[in-house]
Amino acid sequence: MKIAQRFLLSIRYAHSSNKTENIGFIGIGNMGYPMAQNILKHDKLNKYNLVLSDNSQDVMKQIKKDFDKNRCDVVDTPCQVAEKALQIITMLPDGDCVEEAYLGSNGLIKNLTKNHLCIDSSTISPSTALKISKILKKEKQASFIDAPVSGGVPGAVNATLTFMAGGSDADVKRASAIITPFMGKKLFHCGKEVGSGLSAKLCNNMLLAICMIGTSEALNLGRTLGLDPKVLTDIINESTGKNWCSSSYNPVPGMLSGEYANIPPNLDYAKGFRVSLMCKDLTLGQNIANNKSVYCPLGSVAHQIYKYLNANPDASQKDFAYVYPFISGKLLGRKH
Amino acid sequence: MKIAQRFLLSIRYAHSSNKTENIGFIGIGNMGYPMAQNILKHDKLNKYNLVLSDNSQDVMKQIKKDFDKNRCDVVDTPCQVAEKALQIITMLPDGDCVEEAYLGSNGLIKNLTKNHLCIDSSTISPSTALKISKILKKEKQASFIDAPVSGGVPGAVNATLTFMAGGSDADVKRASAIITPFMGKKLFHCGKEVGSGLSAKLCNNMLLAICMIGTSEALNLGRTLGLDPKVLTDIINESTGKNWCSSSYNPVPGMLSGEYANIPPNLDYAKGFRVSLMCKDLTLGQNIANNKSVYCPLGSVAHQIYKYLNANPDASQKDFAYVYPFISGKLLGRKH
Repeated sequence: MKIAQRFLLSIRYAHSSNKTENIGFIGIGNMGYPMAQNILKHDKLNKYNLVLSDNSQDVMKQIKKDFDKNRCDVVDTPCQVAEKALQIITMLPDGDCVEEAYLGSNGLIKNLTKNHLCIDSSTISPSTALKISKILKKEKQASFIDAPVSGGVPGAVNATLTFMAGGSDADVKRASAIITPFMGKKLFHCGKEVGSGLSAKLCNNMLLAICMIGTSEALNLGRTLGLDPKVLTDIINESTGKNWCSSSYNPVPGMLSGEYANIPPNLDYAKGFRVSLMCKDLTLGQNIANNKSVYCPLGSVAHQIYKYLNANPDASQKDFAYVYPFISGKLLGRKH
Repeated sequence: MKIAQRFLLSIRYAHSSNKTENIGFIGIGNMGYPMAQNILKHDKLNKYNLVLSDNSQDVMKQIKKDFDKNRCDVVDTPCQVAEKALQIITMLPDGDCVEEAYLGSNGLIKNLTKNHLCIDSSTISPSTALKISKILKKEKQASFIDAPVSGGVPGAVNATLTFMAGGSDADVKRASAIITPFMGKKLFHCGKEVGSGLSAKLCNNMLLAICMIGTSEALNLGRTLGLDPKVLTDIINESTGKNWCSSSYNPVPGMLSGEYANIPPNLDYAKGFRVSLMCKDLTLGQNIANNKSVYCPLGSVAHQIYKYLNANPDASQKDFAYVYPFISGKLLGRKH
């Protein structure tokens, strides 16, 4: 490389690294709030500022107080976010909210351009994500990827979320520059079609629910047969029944300690991954399975069990391992 | 310790270590045959000889040919085994065979004494094991433990079985002296009551069946949604859905390689842990659960699925991961 070229490149690099870019963030709830904070916290070079929006007036007031005013702009509507930021993250509770934020009367779509990249981290149906991405591409040539997360509120707070992304190589690569350095520890590119990240998440969470219920059934059956649940847990974790729930999130209180001392089952099933959220993910998964005539016998029963638990206002707010006291009959008052 | 005492002890030790003891082995089938061979193979000090018996005349002929005549005695009936050996292992296909071997007209019980220790490695109902142990103790003061295994025929051949034992500390300790050095890599003492080993095994295997079906459902749902099963497998194995089936025995052919290259799903589901055996273990588990009114929603559906597969003569002989082509509809001829 000639010296003149190198000089020009170094000037361009210095220029680009000095220029501040905006990241838009829509949906500043339990997950979005710490995720947005983490962008500012981990962006050591002060390369990015934020443009925030939420449809709750209370949230808007709060974020105006909490976030660094020098680095955050709070705006009223999604379309104003699109006016000010080329990369936009959405983190919303359901598909209707996501459709409204993108396609509604004050939706992002109004101000999107071919230079925009939208990253939707909400957990919604893969087909809704695909539909939105097609409309944005067709009408504005804007890019969209789905990038739902696992890791829950603790993952969002500690920037240890796992992102599962669906979209083109270029779009996912562009998104990764702001995802893993700031908000997560890992990003999986699940497929080139938008919705692939959601599909992977829903498949994983269906399996998670099955393993959680199965582990609860096995440990409860052992209990009624007189086995010490600690001994049975140790045996399972050295055997073919081992799974993430048995080894890292054991649903029987007191089974795990050390690095697992504070898992929700050891804290009266408080916080953690709520029954209501597991129920939502299973509903999305079973809806897809039904639409495509996919046979999911255990996934379907798992869904029924979490629906049943979720219908109880107390149970719906507990961690999803609360299925253990349900399976064991403790919630009803058991005879043994 | 006085010198004279030490001298006497050393003589006694030398004497006892030179004296050969007999181990009885009843049931020289797919599992028992390699287990018995391994006792001779790994007993480097030639401390033990074998007394073998099987109720099949063909097997008797074969073992007379195959086993080292200098170290094996082949006898016709269980009671003759008890006449010649104080430690006796039984490895039989079901509870009726075990009852016959212990309590039948030519059963072990005829010649058992308070010095005998019987180790039953068959997979039967915990209550049958407990019943037999009580009769042996009452009528002959003989000791009995249950010590079923996991690891299948490969584990039996390679002496890498895991034994799950139920019985008193003294009996399990005595048994361990001939179990782990010769036939297995690990022995869990599951509880002091006879039947505890069987309870632990049946709980683990119920969870194993649930994880295998759940993993099959998740990977098949992902496939129909357009996900590459290898990508989804990698994601699950880094996520909360991870379980022994997804990571070490993945039911989709070709997912795992390296040390897992030769798992049955990669070999057209040949050999391995047969559907018929998984079905048997689930039947035992569900019978106990039903007798004790224990709620096992996923265990019950898993049992129904393996019963259905087991009713087909071809499927019943396949490895239990054969549930994947069943779940995916491949066995019926699927439309996608």
